[in-house]
Amino acid sequence: MTKTSAKDFYHLFSQETKDRKVSPLKTFIKYFGDPNMVFLGGGLPLSDYFPWDNIKVDIPVPPFTKGIGQPINKNATEITTLDLYKEKKVADGDIPLARSLQYGHSQGQPELLKFIREHTEIIHTMQYDDWELLVTAGNTSAWESTLRIFCNRGDTILAEAHSFSSSLSAAQAQGIITFPVPIDDKGIIPEKLAAIMDNWNPETPKPKLLYTIPTGQNPTGSSLDAERKSQVYKIAQKHDFLIVEDEPYYFLQMEDYVKDPSLRKEVKLSHDEFLASLDQTFLSIDTDGRVIRMDSFSKVLAPGSRLGWITCSNQIMKAYLALYEMSMQAAAGFTQSIVSATLSKWGQHGYLDWLLGLRHEYTLKRDNAIDACYKYIPQTDAFHINPPVAGMFFTITFDGAKHPEFTTKFKSDPLLLESYLYEKAVESGVIIAPGSWFITDGETIPPQPKESKESNNPNSVFFRGTFAAVAADKLNESLKRFGQVLHDEFKV
Amino acid sequence: MTKTSAKDFYHLFSQETKDRKVSPLKTFIKYFGDPNMVFLGGGLPLSDYFPWDNIKVDIPVPPFTKGIGQPINKNATEITTLDLYKEKKVADGDIPLARSLQYGHSQGQPELLKFIREHTEIIHTMQYDDWELLVTAGNTSAWESTLRIFCNRGDTILAEAHSFSSSLSAAQAQGIITFPVPIDDKGIIPEKLAAIMDNWNPETPKPKLLYTIPTGQNPTGSSLDAERKSQVYKIAQKHDFLIVEDEPYYFLQMEDYVKDPSLRKEVKLSHDEFLASLDQTFLSIDTDGRVIRMDSFSKVLAPGSRLGWITCSNQIMKAYLALYEMSMQAAAGFTQSIVSATLSKWGQHGYLDWLLGLRHEYTLKRDNAIDACYKYIPQTDAFHINPPVAGMFFTITFDGAKHPEFTTKFKSDPLLLESYLYEKAVESGVIIAPGSWFITDGETIPPQPKESKESNNPNSVFFRGTFAAVAADKLNESLKRFGQVLHDEFKV
Repeated sequence: MTKTSAKDFYHLFSQETKDRKVSPLKTFIKYFGDPNMVFLGGGLPLSDYFPWDNIKVDIPVPPFTKGIGQPINKNATEITTLDLYKEKKVADGDIPLARSLQYGHSQGQPELLKFIREHTEIIHTMQYDDWELLVTAGNTSAWESTLRIFCNRGDTILAEAHSFSSSLSAAQAQGIITFPVPIDDKGIIPEKLAAIMDNWNPETPKPKLLYTIPTGQNPTGSSLDAERKSQVYKIAQKHDFLIVEDEPYYFLQMEDYVKDPSLRKEVKLSHDEFLASLDQTFLSIDTDGRVIRMDSFSKVLAPGSRLGWITCSNQIMKAYLALYEMSMQAAAGFTQSIVSATLSKWGQHGYLDWLLGLRHEYTLKRDNAIDACYKYIPQTDAFHINPPVAGMFFTITFDGAKHPEFTTKFKSDPLLLESYLYEKAVESGVIIAPGSWFITDGETIPPQPKESKESNNPNSVFFRGTFAAVAADKLNESLKRFGQVLHDEFKV
Repeated sequence: MTKTSAKDFYHLFSQETKDRKVSPLKTFIKYFGDPNMVFLGGGLPLSDYFPWDNIKVDIPVPPFTKGIGQPINKNATEITTLDLYKEKKVADGDIPLARSLQYGHSQGQPELLKFIREHTEIIHTMQYDDWELLVTAGNTSAWESTLRIFCNRGDTILAEAHSFSSSLSAAQAQGIITFPVPIDDKGIIPEKLAAIMDNWNPETPKPKLLYTIPTGQNPTGSSLDAERKSQVYKIAQKHDFLIVEDEPYYFLQMEDYVKDPSLRKEVKLSHDEFLASLDQTFLSIDTDGRVIRMDSFSKVLAPGSRLGWITCSNQIMKAYLALYEMSMQAAAGFTQSIVSATLSKWGQHGYLDWLLGLRHEYTLKRDNAIDACYKYIPQTDAFHINPPVAGMFFTITFDGAKHPEFTTKFKSDPLLLESYLYEKAVESGVIIAPGSWFITDGETIPPQPKESKESNNPNSVFFRGTFAAVAADKLNESLKRFGQVLHDEFKV
């Protein structure tokens, strides 16, 4: 395959990005490591005064034959101890604390970048040469930065018609208009997106970017397949917008749901089978460098690591770097040292083992949740359960008009019903998120397509649940409670 | 003393802050910890899948009788080992990893907040009741957020006429105008600030805030005394702007410089003497809640901790919190756990011992640097060295017109000379920052006062050095090199 350079997207940068001047103090960086140069330039404290030296961290080791989910127990799981020092490297992937706890390396520490680069080459098929990585403080922060990098007040972005509310709120606070793209149970509907863009009011500036959560979408749990991705990408090329793929759930792809437990078999995928099973990414079809991919360790290692990374063209990475140098500066040093040492100890194969372990755990959790849905949620035509194949979320959708008091008590307003049911659920001891919390504000959208029977129904109501956050018994109990609310309310 | 509530500063918020909607998902928070409630709401992974459990960290223990500066060595320094677990607390200040590595607590983990609150009450005299703390990812990030919280494009802020270039660049990228406030070797000149504000063009919106580094100012090394602070505060009240005190160097206050080494005596301050020696802060005189103080662990523990805190009124804290919830979310979990456990192990008294240790080290480093300046920098009337009493920086100021080729080779342009000398210094193997890198762009400022003889001279040039970043021998060598450049160039 002939590789190409990424296209120039300077014209899509925000005024802020265009105006940002790199601090002259950063010109020092080119002299770092020069043994003949003495630095009286920067206000760096000596690492002699960092009060931490040796840090020891217990981690489980691949191939994780006893599973990955446990309080790590020295008797039940094979563990090893990482040894991190101020100056010394025990292994190649170690980042000495004297460096990770010092200023510098805003793009990320080299050892961590090296691991992620190798990982990227295993997972994606990069189509252009000048791609870069940038270590972030997680996807929420990366997305908020993305808005600063590209959007001015009054600009428009595209987003799935239901999307992650924090991401939408971040845009709205910045005075950015969100324009909803119709979705069905397979995600963005390319024909609808094409129609929106082809009929875009020529007096209004076109959207600069599409924000999408392609895998295990939040809140719908849907995943966008390769065919649709390809169609969406062509629309982005035609109308010159960027695609921001926010992929925190990418490695929470699961086996298909099989309703009859007796037909389920334990799947043991080889690494090759696992890699082949993963959805093709926008990044892998991106010949232009118009995809910005945001990955995160939040869902696969721990949210409080506050660590993720962006993959994009060199030009775009530099814009993020300039922003980071005058805001977060760099991801936290302890995190980079501990995560890098962990990953490097595991190696690329060991990390795939970990991700396979997660896949196994999430498949079990999803199956348990959907089983409980079928057991406890009313099984009539009015109710619909959509078993997800990725992510943390499932949705319970129903026809609000089937509630006996829909036209009376709720004045035929599905939002009033939704809000009432949310409160009833809370009273019964279960927190589940109403679908209306995730509506992408914006222009009125065209009628929904036939593919989406629920959203075609103006009285359709849904709730988003997660099978991630709670153990199996509690999840069963909570769906029993929520099911009871629905049975009681709908008199079914 | 009668305590008061902070004033309402809603009118100074940016459009973005006024438009920011708190995510409905945050309404879950009120149910956290309710044993009867099951959460199907949030996408939180189970801590069972966090691959880290036991973390052991070696730290030195108070009273640090053998000093604080060393690679921590088990033979030379008394050390103890912190034991951090997923679920278990060994000590009160421990933050279990299952919590610090999970989502939540955007304001900061309670154990860390508790320590900082007690510390705040020891250091400052809070004048109003409803003050709050917010844990940040360091002051660079906190300042960049501050601009988002208060300023719209086109707004003006005040800053010292020479200030930290990254802070100024962050404002300029956001389309915020920086207006320079004249300074002398004691910092902001209150009369000049008063004149600027009293004569403010009534057709231009007044500045919303003053950005200041009161202690060990960057780049000048000056410290603003209590009298000037009080005058500046009254001007802020009269003209209704906020004061942002950026204080990363606050605990790097030192003994006065004594030129004759034989007259220096080793100072051993008690805790009470140490506390009494610290400069009075803007926070301690803030009756209105118009001071936003930014503290950082970067200079007193380690920069890569990416950890600091903001002290401000409850109303203002909430605006930061809403921004953080949709950007950084929270400071990194490993950092919060390790720093909190360290501080809590030391206790408030132990932390004061650590800060006293730093004071001792920085006094020695400053003395060494200034001694070397007097030894190597030309000792003529044209050259001026200003021994700092706080921070990491010293300045070498000189009259550019005294260069033999000032009017010819440098066309009487001090900036051309400065740039030439910078390059000469680099050639000789020393990096030192030219003063022009720190100029606060903005309106033309009124003539400088008599107090400031250097800046009164239009041909004045200065360089900023740091005594923090390098060991004594290297610092001596570098000042020898730089001194040689000046001797050669000025033919003295």
